[in-house]
Amino acid sequence: MRKVYLDNAATTPMLTEVLEAMLPFLKDAYGNPQSLHDWGDEAREAIDDARARVADLIGAKVEEIIFTSSGTESNNFAVKGLAMAQQAKGKHIVVSDIEHFSVLHSARTLEKWGFEMTQVPVDRNGMVDPDEVARSLRKDTVLVSIMHANGEVGTIQPIDEIAKVVKKTGALFHTDAVATAGTIPVDVRELGVDALSLAGNQFYGPKGVGALWVKKWLRIIPFLDGGVQEGGRRAGTENMPAIVGLGKAAELAKAEMDSRMDHLSALRNRLMKALPSRIEHAIVTGHPTQRLPGNASFCIEFIEGEAMLMLLNHQGVAVSSGSACTSRALKASHVLTAMGIPAEVAQGSLLFTFGRENTGEDVDYVLEVMPPIVDRLRQMSPLYAKFLKGRKGGK
Amino acid sequence: MRKVYLDNAATTPMLTEVLEAMLPFLKDAYGNPQSLHDWGDEAREAIDDARARVADLIGAKVEEIIFTSSGTESNNFAVKGLAMAQQAKGKHIVVSDIEHFSVLHSARTLEKWGFEMTQVPVDRNGMVDPDEVARSLRKDTVLVSIMHANGEVGTIQPIDEIAKVVKKTGALFHTDAVATAGTIPVDVRELGVDALSLAGNQFYGPKGVGALWVKKWLRIIPFLDGGVQEGGRRAGTENMPAIVGLGKAAELAKAEMDSRMDHLSALRNRLMKALPSRIEHAIVTGHPTQRLPGNASFCIEFIEGEAMLMLLNHQGVAVSSGSACTSRALKASHVLTAMGIPAEVAQGSLLFTFGRENTGEDVDYVLEVMPPIVDRLRQMSPLYAKFLKGRKGGK
Repeated sequence: MRKVYLDNAATTPMLTEVLEAMLPFLKDAYGNPQSLHDWGDEAREAIDDARARVADLIGAKVEEIIFTSSGTESNNFAVKGLAMAQQAKGKHIVVSDIEHFSVLHSARTLEKWGFEMTQVPVDRNGMVDPDEVARSLRKDTVLVSIMHANGEVGTIQPIDEIAKVVKKTGALFHTDAVATAGTIPVDVRELGVDALSLAGNQFYGPKGVGALWVKKWLRIIPFLDGGVQEGGRRAGTENMPAIVGLGKAAELAKAEMDSRMDHLSALRNRLMKALPSRIEHAIVTGHPTQRLPGNASFCIEFIEGEAMLMLLNHQGVAVSSGSACTSRALKASHVLTAMGIPAEVAQGSLLFTFGRENTGEDVDYVLEVMPPIVDRLRQMSPLYAKFLKGRKGGK
Repeated sequence: MRKVYLDNAATTPMLTEVLEAMLPFLKDAYGNPQSLHDWGDEAREAIDDARARVADLIGAKVEEIIFTSSGTESNNFAVKGLAMAQQAKGKHIVVSDIEHFSVLHSARTLEKWGFEMTQVPVDRNGMVDPDEVARSLRKDTVLVSIMHANGEVGTIQPIDEIAKVVKKTGALFHTDAVATAGTIPVDVRELGVDALSLAGNQFYGPKGVGALWVKKWLRIIPFLDGGVQEGGRRAGTENMPAIVGLGKAAELAKAEMDSRMDHLSALRNRLMKALPSRIEHAIVTGHPTQRLPGNASFCIEFIEGEAMLMLLNHQGVAVSSGSACTSRALKASHVLTAMGIPAEVAQGSLLFTFGRENTGEDVDYVLEVMPPIVDRLRQMSPLYAKFLKGRKGGK
């Protein structure tokens, strides 16, 4: 059976070149970069090199990059660490309705610590309106955190425009770029943000490593207390193999970005165009054009996304019904709900995320195996029966 | 030149068997364990298996193990998460003077959040007296965190006795077992603790992964907010290769523990006995018998530890002057200071930590190259000149 992995938003496969760069650090180069001897020096040089590559990917200064263990940690660190550092100025923060839970739940933790949070809505395409952000800002707003792009529906936000609005006040602006850094061009100065999160496993790098970019001189309260690693800003023995792998993945992402984007967009466009023509009541979710190159997201009405996943899996196709971080919670996605999609439609959510290795044949295969699955599921759906009855009745 | 790595407290080399176990998850088995398809299932089975092995190493139930990114994260999570979960009961915590900074600084963060902290002293051997812990306990004490063994001086604490004292009150008891788990027998039920931290890179497993054991049903506030991973207790895409590697390292540690301990103790005893006979004014630090099998720690009077490290490094020998997490801060160790060692003596701190691959020849080599280095450094030491003058004057 053909095996088709279309769940690159959950995690991308790691490139062979990345593994090759990591291997020495999984073998003989096992030193701790904090150690004052040759083993330590070797590790420290490698970490400096990786830091330079990550900085280069996002147009940052080398010393502005803090390595973390994941995009989730970067988001926790940014939201909690920046808000806490600013709390003497005010205790109000702003996020969007469609943030990843690592931002949303960090904001809720801040609420328990005495902060107030405002959630900015999105439109039907999942887009944040900079004017809505402007209206949410208060004198005591110290932090705004709005994601660069949403991994579930692919919508890319106008971060530079939002940054201009935020900069008119004294608030800081963090963006969760986990879905974009390494995938589309990201330049921290052009975006105009103060802090930015990224994760290695989103662009063919290792799991277990992320980075937080924080603008030079900006104060942030450490999230992980302990040793003096990462300039005293993030304690814990550095995960050398993963950091080196992230550096390599960043270098490759920069070099191959244009060709990867072209490849992914072509596959995505083909599926986004063909699927609704093959399957009735398949709605494209997210923005029609301002979206991640590899993201094709739909709601298939009158079916349960999870049942769909299982049956597609039986055909060798790996997809998702939303964020992997919440897939096992089996609730309707807060992202789709925020976009005004009714819960019963959101239940049919289906997310295809393409990667570097996917081909046009993968799209053809999906288009071949999916319609009979949808038919089968709809035959068992009381909602669909009701819909058909209503349609007949209406004729 | 001979290369002798004697800095296994900073980090151990990873075993080939561990790398072999990890490799599939660095290559084709790249799925996210949260995903609802075959790639996800494969990852989830591997994580369950690794969890069982780690649980088995410390006598825990499988569902009590939470994977983290490091020992530092485990300590932050335990100290902050348990104290915050108990804060309605009281806001007093107890730690020892010689905790790792990931515990001490987490406790200081809790102070900023309105908690009070009592630090329990240690004796000249770095030992915590259970009676001192008893005296520190108050009605509003909600958490005691005392390390199982100190990586800098090797002293192993009487955790089971301290646990009995703590259990007489309603306080919870966490122990930082980063230096012991996988190295000496650790059984959470025998120790009588409520939570325990461990780290993979301390027993020939990967960097970038640790675990926190929390007793079943015990409430802990998540440290990393976000997705539903680790039973909703620790968000972030699971670092699959490292988790699998930790499982393998745990399995091997359990199987080989006795022979590893015998090997390490023999090397340590040889160095601890021979070094003070070859080098004048070399004082053994830490407990004479209740100490980690691979730990031989000294203070060499009238020299600077850092200068010693550099010159030993030129001879191919990697050692440390204390914790790698603070080595670059170049301050006298808080551990040695707490043991009553004067700052000028503590400056000559030198820590040899043996590993599985070390041999008797490594000890011989150290005993050969070290005395001339000490002589050379002492010739340049004003303190030593003063000492010699005083000794002459006294004759």
